[in-house]
Amino acid sequence: MLPDVVVDEIPLVDGGEGSAAALAAATGGRLVPVTVTGPVGLPVDSHFALFGGTGPRTAVVEMAAAAGLSLVPRDSRDPTVTTSFGVGQLISAALDAGATRILVGCGDSGICDGGVGALQALGVRVIDAMGDELGRGGAALSEVESIDVSGLDPRIAGVDVLVAVNPYNVLCGESGVARVFGPQKGATPDQVEQLSAAMERWAKVLERDLHVDLRAVPGSGASGGLGAGLAAALGARLLPRFEVMIGSVHLDEAISRADLVITAEGSVDGQTTRGKVPGEVARVAAGYGKPVVALAGTIGPDADVSYDAGIGGVASILPGPTTLEDAIDRGPEFLCDAAERVMRLVQIGRGLA
Amino acid sequence: MLPDVVVDEIPLVDGGEGSAAALAAATGGRLVPVTVTGPVGLPVDSHFALFGGTGPRTAVVEMAAAAGLSLVPRDSRDPTVTTSFGVGQLISAALDAGATRILVGCGDSGICDGGVGALQALGVRVIDAMGDELGRGGAALSEVESIDVSGLDPRIAGVDVLVAVNPYNVLCGESGVARVFGPQKGATPDQVEQLSAAMERWAKVLERDLHVDLRAVPGSGASGGLGAGLAAALGARLLPRFEVMIGSVHLDEAISRADLVITAEGSVDGQTTRGKVPGEVARVAAGYGKPVVALAGTIGPDADVSYDAGIGGVASILPGPTTLEDAIDRGPEFLCDAAERVMRLVQIGRGLA
Repeated sequence: MLPDVVVDEIPLVDGGEGSAAALAAATGGRLVPVTVTGPVGLPVDSHFALFGGTGPRTAVVEMAAAAGLSLVPRDSRDPTVTTSFGVGQLISAALDAGATRILVGCGDSGICDGGVGALQALGVRVIDAMGDELGRGGAALSEVESIDVSGLDPRIAGVDVLVAVNPYNVLCGESGVARVFGPQKGATPDQVEQLSAAMERWAKVLERDLHVDLRAVPGSGASGGLGAGLAAALGARLLPRFEVMIGSVHLDEAISRADLVITAEGSVDGQTTRGKVPGEVARVAAGYGKPVVALAGTIGPDADVSYDAGIGGVASILPGPTTLEDAIDRGPEFLCDAAERVMRLVQIGRGLA
Repeated sequence: MLPDVVVDEIPLVDGGEGSAAALAAATGGRLVPVTVTGPVGLPVDSHFALFGGTGPRTAVVEMAAAAGLSLVPRDSRDPTVTTSFGVGQLISAALDAGATRILVGCGDSGICDGGVGALQALGVRVIDAMGDELGRGGAALSEVESIDVSGLDPRIAGVDVLVAVNPYNVLCGESGVARVFGPQKGATPDQVEQLSAAMERWAKVLERDLHVDLRAVPGSGASGGLGAGLAAALGARLLPRFEVMIGSVHLDEAISRADLVITAEGSVDGQTTRGKVPGEVARVAAGYGKPVVALAGTIGPDADVSYDAGIGGVASILPGPTTLEDAIDRGPEFLCDAAERVMRLVQIGRGLA
């Protein structure tokens, strides 16, 4: 239909499941396979990504690939025992590969251990009142007494570690990670309280031994407190996931070249402009004066606010009455057809001008 | 958003329920109230429309307003006894009002009497073997012996009667009106056979007495055979409903003035170009080189053929997963929102040109 159109596909991942693979593809890089200790203590086939191209040697460590919820069998979902150990192993493998910049993607985690497992995998000692190394899982964190980073892999010092987080996730308090995400990871109400107290105890230890108070720092609660652990012991920077991920795919550059930007989200509604993908894309596009169309499975009644935020058009991907389940199952097909319909309407507009 | 845009709303009715009111509104005419004998023999408040403006004094007689299925109580749905008598009364009232051109809209009928009732209301005698006037309903038609039009209202001679029909509806045979529509009007399988035989008998009488063979004429089966009765006894012309209805709203003229045409249909699919509203609209628009957008509740997998037929764009009206029922209930709201979304996409296109 439009043979002269050049389509630039930019994966806008949020750091969760699939992010490493998408970024490897987007940058012409590759996935490096690594076998690590999974969240329930069994070996899992995992991977990290190495960017292609020039620039600093960048690795993407997707925490979900080593300690994601989907790696925890449904009947083993218990965040008091699952561990982030494999995430530390992936970071270690990225260092072996010569990475000087490591992007850690959070999201879709199946653990709530404050990042203790990941730190232990990198040589950090986290010990209880008896001076013994802490065991696996969030429950063990209830016994944490001190942290000793003297054994941390020395290569970390020369590496920029960026953790892509949802800034609304914090370590402690009423909106702390144990309370907000514990239940969906399989914690019972009692376990939620236990984990919540463990996070507070962990925050106290980090404050006393490493002189950082991370309780309410944006992103400290990311991936069951992994954000806090990496920030405190590795000096990692916790950054909004879109900043890290969008920065890594050169979205600005692509948008500056584009005539039209098409993005998508499950639902376009009043929340779209508050940190969701289309809102972030529109923010960047507005800087270049480029029009943005958002495809959506659901267009909320308050979707109008997105127009004010620079999303010039919204289109429904649904070809007929359907269930949410079916809409998700057939999402790729629906998106493709909807994109064609949008382009036909845009073409009609071009013809009218 | 677009303060300079002039929106020309053209109701594209198919002759069924609501057509008279829509056409009165579209032409600046009016509805004339008439009390007639309804399909089950009780008086009903009915109406016909008179066009406004210049041109021949045109009346619209919507058969559904005098003998529609919705006028038959659910527990009285029996096309062997329901009558089209009120339709003849409406035609008579239109003559009283001085109409010189009468458009009879078919569709949504609750009768299957071959138009006998309507003809009797206009002075035609339809008699059985005993020489008695036929009683009400399709069953009585089983006894039809002859027709005598000498008593027909003489004013009909000076009037152009156009019957807007679905050309696929025929009086007799395997695809005859009794077989295709009898069941949805409440006929049992036995009654379907009875009505089917009655239609054949009616066709024979019309052929012998009025020298027309209407058995398979397109539209002869419209509205329970009303098409055949009006064609045979009144010399009415059976015309495709879109031709009659679209002709009466000056669609050509409106399209010739438009920059963009927006139409709609429940489903846009492989059938759209075969006599459905968007297909007809596209056909007219193609003659003026005007772009057409069709809004749809369902976009069928074979909707692509509509692109080849001059529908430049199709948009889904659904704002999210929903049932067919909900989509119909909220249709007006969904259509309005979808039209806005289409215009935003068209505007983006204009901006790109």
